[in-house]
Amino acid sequence: MEGVDYLAGERKKAEFDVESMKIVWAGSRHVLEVSDRISKLVADDPAFRKDDRTMLSRKELFKNTIRKAVYAWKRIVELHLSEEEASRLRFYVDEPAFTDLHWGMFVPAIKGQGTDEQQQKWLPLAYKMQIIGCYAQTELGHGSNVQGLETTATFDPRTDEFVINSPTLTSSKWWPGGLGKVSTHAVVYARLITDGKDHGVHGFIVQLRSLEDHTPLPGITVGDIGMKFGNGAYNTMDNGLLRFDHVRIPRNQMLMRVSQVTREGKYKQSDVPRQLVYGTMVYVRQTIVVDASSALSKAVCIATRYSAVRRQFGSQNGGPETQVIDYKTQQSRLFPLLASAYAFRFVGEWLKWLYTDVTQRLQANDFSTLPEAHACTAGLKSLTTSATADGIEECRKLCGGHGYLCSSGLPELFAVYVPACTYEGDNTVLLLQVARFLMKTVSQLGTGKQPVGTVAYMGRIEHLMQCSSNVQKAEDWLKPNQVMEAFEARAARMSVSCARNLSKYANPEEGFAELSADLVEAAVAHCQLIVVSKFIDKLQQDIPGEGVKRQLEVLCGVYYLYLLHKHQGDFLATRYLNPKQAALANDQLRALYTQVRPNAIALVDAFNYTDHFLGSILGRYDGNVYPKLYEAAWKDPLNETVVPDGYHEYLRPLLKQQLPSARL
Amino acid sequence: MEGVDYLAGERKKAEFDVESMKIVWAGSRHVLEVSDRISKLVADDPAFRKDDRTMLSRKELFKNTIRKAVYAWKRIVELHLSEEEASRLRFYVDEPAFTDLHWGMFVPAIKGQGTDEQQQKWLPLAYKMQIIGCYAQTELGHGSNVQGLETTATFDPRTDEFVINSPTLTSSKWWPGGLGKVSTHAVVYARLITDGKDHGVHGFIVQLRSLEDHTPLPGITVGDIGMKFGNGAYNTMDNGLLRFDHVRIPRNQMLMRVSQVTREGKYKQSDVPRQLVYGTMVYVRQTIVVDASSALSKAVCIATRYSAVRRQFGSQNGGPETQVIDYKTQQSRLFPLLASAYAFRFVGEWLKWLYTDVTQRLQANDFSTLPEAHACTAGLKSLTTSATADGIEECRKLCGGHGYLCSSGLPELFAVYVPACTYEGDNTVLLLQVARFLMKTVSQLGTGKQPVGTVAYMGRIEHLMQCSSNVQKAEDWLKPNQVMEAFEARAARMSVSCARNLSKYANPEEGFAELSADLVEAAVAHCQLIVVSKFIDKLQQDIPGEGVKRQLEVLCGVYYLYLLHKHQGDFLATRYLNPKQAALANDQLRALYTQVRPNAIALVDAFNYTDHFLGSILGRYDGNVYPKLYEAAWKDPLNETVVPDGYHEYLRPLLKQQLPSARL
Ligand SMILES: Cc1cc2nc3c(=O)[nH]c(=O)nc-3n(C[C@H](O)[C@H](O)[C@H](O)COP(=O)(O)OP(=O)(O)OC[C@H]3O[C@@H](n4cnc5c(N)ncnc54)[C@H](O)[C@@H]3O)c2cc1C
Ligand SMILES: Cc1cc2nc3c(=O)[nH]c(=O)nc-3n(C[C@H](O)[C@H](O)[C@H](O)COP(=O)(O)OP(=O)(O)OC[C@H]3O[C@@H](n4cnc5c(N)ncnc54)[C@H](O)[C@@H]3O)c2cc1C
Repeated sequence: MEGVDYLAGERKKAEFDVESMKIVWAGSRHVLEVSDRISKLVADDPAFRKDDRTMLSRKELFKNTIRKAVYAWKRIVELHLSEEEASRLRFYVDEPAFTDLHWGMFVPAIKGQGTDEQQQKWLPLAYKMQIIGCYAQTELGHGSNVQGLETTATFDPRTDEFVINSPTLTSSKWWPGGLGKVSTHAVVYARLITDGKDHGVHGFIVQLRSLEDHTPLPGITVGDIGMKFGNGAYNTMDNGLLRFDHVRIPRNQMLMRVSQVTREGKYKQSDVPRQLVYGTMVYVRQTIVVDASSALSKAVCIATRYSAVRRQFGSQNGGPETQVIDYKTQQSRLFPLLASAYAFRFVGEWLKWLYTDVTQRLQANDFSTLPEAHACTAGLKSLTTSATADGIEECRKLCGGHGYLCSSGLPELFAVYVPACTYEGDNTVLLLQVARFLMKTVSQLGTGKQPVGTVAYMGRIEHLMQCSSNVQKAEDWLKPNQVMEAFEARAARMSVSCARNLSKYANPEEGFAELSADLVEAAVAHCQLIVVSKFIDKLQQDIPGEGVKRQLEVLCGVYYLYLLHKHQGDFLATRYLNPKQAALANDQLRALYTQVRPNAIALVDAFNYTDHFLGSILGRYDGNVYPKLYEAAWKDPLNETVVPDGYHEYLRPLLKQQLPSARL
Repeated sequence: MEGVDYLAGERKKAEFDVESMKIVWAGSRHVLEVSDRISKLVADDPAFRKDDRTMLSRKELFKNTIRKAVYAWKRIVELHLSEEEASRLRFYVDEPAFTDLHWGMFVPAIKGQGTDEQQQKWLPLAYKMQIIGCYAQTELGHGSNVQGLETTATFDPRTDEFVINSPTLTSSKWWPGGLGKVSTHAVVYARLITDGKDHGVHGFIVQLRSLEDHTPLPGITVGDIGMKFGNGAYNTMDNGLLRFDHVRIPRNQMLMRVSQVTREGKYKQSDVPRQLVYGTMVYVRQTIVVDASSALSKAVCIATRYSAVRRQFGSQNGGPETQVIDYKTQQSRLFPLLASAYAFRFVGEWLKWLYTDVTQRLQANDFSTLPEAHACTAGLKSLTTSATADGIEECRKLCGGHGYLCSSGLPELFAVYVPACTYEGDNTVLLLQVARFLMKTVSQLGTGKQPVGTVAYMGRIEHLMQCSSNVQKAEDWLKPNQVMEAFEARAARMSVSCARNLSKYANPEEGFAELSADLVEAAVAHCQLIVVSKFIDKLQQDIPGEGVKRQLEVLCGVYYLYLLHKHQGDFLATRYLNPKQAALANDQLRALYTQVRPNAIALVDAFNYTDHFLGSILGRYDGNVYPKLYEAAWKDPLNETVVPDGYHEYLRPLLKQQLPSARL
């Protein structure tokens, strides 16, 4: 029945004020207000419907994305939306598009790496979308190793131009979003060559397509790289390939903020410090962490609501069966993900602060915290995206068979999310960078150089190497200092143990390579500590709203005790815990699940997602799952006819045993 | 270049005879010969091409599947293929189709549950495909809980018929493969009602569609349930919905081998034991375990070959970069999956033996081993399918960005595989059954009832509770008896610990529910022990071929040491190992990776997969990845035109700033 809230009973059980929690989730009352208004604007506009997305052919899908992206822009202009509102609108449209790269990579690259003059020339065009740009770095043969890119930009002093060329097949640009079919321009990364000398990889603004008829300019071969994972999903994006056959661009289209090529062809560094690029990197990674919490929270919202609707087994005397959310196995898989979504939200919030801090320091020419900020953001990007990708798939499995239907929303969410583990730094490569930083930190202990920020705990290394847990009963695991010491001791001991093993190798690089799997584990331990500590820090703040803080304390406990249980081997192997204490942690975790249970629906309601944004029948706000699943099924193209295409040609001859022996 | 083997150098490194390993993998020289012949037959026939599958619309895709399935049948008839060959052919066509359910569920259901008379009537029609059948059990509201199904079959003694009815929306059949568009018949599970009495769920043969024009028979509503996860993938299958409005079928279409309804409407049991159904269950689960090893080995084959082709970083003096397979992090993620593929193969082989054993005992009315066989197959189904689903996605990530392209084959492999974690028993529900069996086994220790088969180790419970590991150096971890004791002690202690905690509850069911997450962990430990022990058993056999046994020993070591490291918390918490011994296991594991490395390509060659079957450019036998990726990109429908559909309508007005303010 329409209009009935099948989850009303669940909502009544909540022991906290949902509206206040919405503010906590959003970050502020202001952000909540904007998000709420813009998400409803999108949801109410039929031009943004997306429920047919997984059924469209690639061409229909892509045309539709162009339509939506351009329409979204028109609405932004018409409604005079602020930058914040515009970016929220793109977020709630919830469809990867060339505009993501235009606003998220092309514009920032010019801002970060262009001179003032270059910015004055290109940014107004980009801001009005009179040109559309993408970010063309990765090649067929090189992704992670940016320094290995093969595209060349050779300065020709006779004409004052760069000649951009793709010398090999593997030098073809490959992957840039928005490149395949839409972008008129690109920031292209290529090896700068002047006077026969290779200066390494630099960025260049290159026009790709005619602004008159959109055909590729002479010397340029460009196209889409083909279907990607999933229906709908990232196939709305025209990830592209690009080859240059000696394409000439004026010298002033090299991005020259940090280094320049003069009219004479001399290469020189400006006095702008190279480290400036790190600011952008911190920014981009912060958005990735926040996006992780969004994606995970969507999946958790769907799985939680459906788990309250779905009943299976346990009927007594013909009464209703048990809601699957009441099974402890379901809780032990679902609630840690709910807690993770909140944890990632808060660490994302903290990263915003870090970005401001880094930016201010850069402006004051203070580069001292950069290595730490770099390692910390690399690690958090890796940790949160991996956990989110796995978590979405776990949520899908938690929905049983129906989770496998596209109408559950979960398959598309997974398919569209997983590349976050790969782009902006492959997650393993990033963890190795964290590990390198940790090893350096350990090696400098005792040299007087105090570790700062997220590695400050290493300053207490002597204590952390010797201490052991005081936990004696399950409730002791609710004490933040007990928990912090446990995670710090584990992380510190794993790092130190790696460092000791490394020191046995004559060649440190060889040792690092050999022990890299262990180093990655140490890096993960360190990153988990960061997330736990930022969640605990958050709880030190004043958090208004009835029962809100209490709920967050429970979720925080679920998060760290789940990690502790999952990785109990680390805690036991480093002898910080004994088996009894590890078992007590598990007991406490179980008790916390029981506390989450009555609040579960309200905790996902606090995300304040519209049904449009969720895009899931299983996750409907009103819980009216079955009739809507049934309705949706009939929309499949196969149901357009009662008798399927192929019956007369193939099936009937088979059933009638009239198969001709010629080829079908 | 065509015809060049870019992996020839890798193949030369192998330290064993690949042809002999092919026989080991296949199971016998005969199976290898059949598989090799049939897979090539499929690969060489353009009618079976599948490289365009992920680009087709649902309707095109589905029509194509009908075409292939019917063509496959024609070839089977024309070539007079044996049953074994026919089933291999369907396997290598590698496309889920209605025929899977016809042969895999419909026919076996009639064979297992039909009387001799019923078999004589229906099987010849099914064998010739004059009728096509499916297996209609799951409903919109009930999957795992089969006893909760709502469809009714009410006996009407006046007409000697059953009236099949769908009383509620949630009673709609939902999910059966082959039902949506193709099947003419179904085995339908419904509550049998005679004289107002409910006898629970029974099977009935019901005709769904006219054999003349394929339209649904009166009272029947049937259709497809819509798109599922992924492009191509399982969307070739018409999983369907089905509603009955008082549909009448003759009494003799109830499957009456085990229980009957007489002409007078009396319900009675035959003297055929109910337990017979377990035989089929063991059979089906055995095939699922073997399929897991196939799916995982495909993914591993792709990721291993590509990891040898892909180079990133580490170039010295302009020489080639490092193959990513040489990175220890890559090895530590990839090689355990390679070892798992082999491990699952061997445990699958053992399950074939178990099936024969169970069948023979059933024929001799010996039901004593059934509970153990049931628990063991449930657990192995759960363990292998979960590990395979995760493993495929890990392989995809191991391929970096390019793994996200459909042309890598990995997205489709994942999407088509994951429902194996849900169908034939949700993996968590199955592990809870294993746990129940383990708790029963523990409770009976000391009562004189000796545990048999895969729980025989529980008979040595006193020793297993007290012993501790003798390992003193890394190589000790290569001794099978050390390993067996470790896995047995861990599993036994986890079960006993659960049993002790359970005994603290007054109501055992309440305790079981409360502790179910821990019980699942104990069940996993038990199942891992089974896989490890069957791998070790395999190595006790005579295995011909130069170096073959040696390689399998290495893989076996990788498998158990990987598990041991991953779950070291269990081993430490139960105090069977101390931290030092756990660290030694990890050292030994690292050493084994180095031994796998030169053999990796040959170890995946031993699967003997054709490029057609693999369906992956990254996994090509010849390693000629880049030119083929480039070629494939151009086939995307978006590349049919240089300027995309939507340019004139939407993009041009945007770029030219001529957006009308009307709705787009
Ligand atoms: C959806 C999507 C969108 C993208 N958008 C853009 C875009 O807009 N612009 C753009 O320029 N690029 C884009 N990319 C490309 C992306 O940045 C690269 O895919 C990413 O950097 C990973 O590089 P790779 O693909 O070369 O992986 P590889 O480096 O080849 O990784 C393969 C394997 O090797 C391992 N490995 C690599 N190096 C090491 C090492 N040193 N030590 C240990 N292991 C190692 C990795 O862990 C991985 O397991 C996109 C990619 C995707 C999937
Ligand atoms: C691709 C595909 C093909 C299929 N083909 C067929 C077919 O041919 N014929 C057919 O009849 N059916 C078919 N099915 C249906 C399939 O058998 C069911 O989906 C499966 O049995 C799982 O049941 P469910 O979907 O009801 O999951 P649910 O039982 O609803 O599971 C939802 C969640 O509840 C949890 N849960 C349920 N019960 C318990 C419990 N007692 N304790 C703890 N947790 C519990 C589960 O672990 C899961 O996390 C198919 C399904 C799929 C996805």
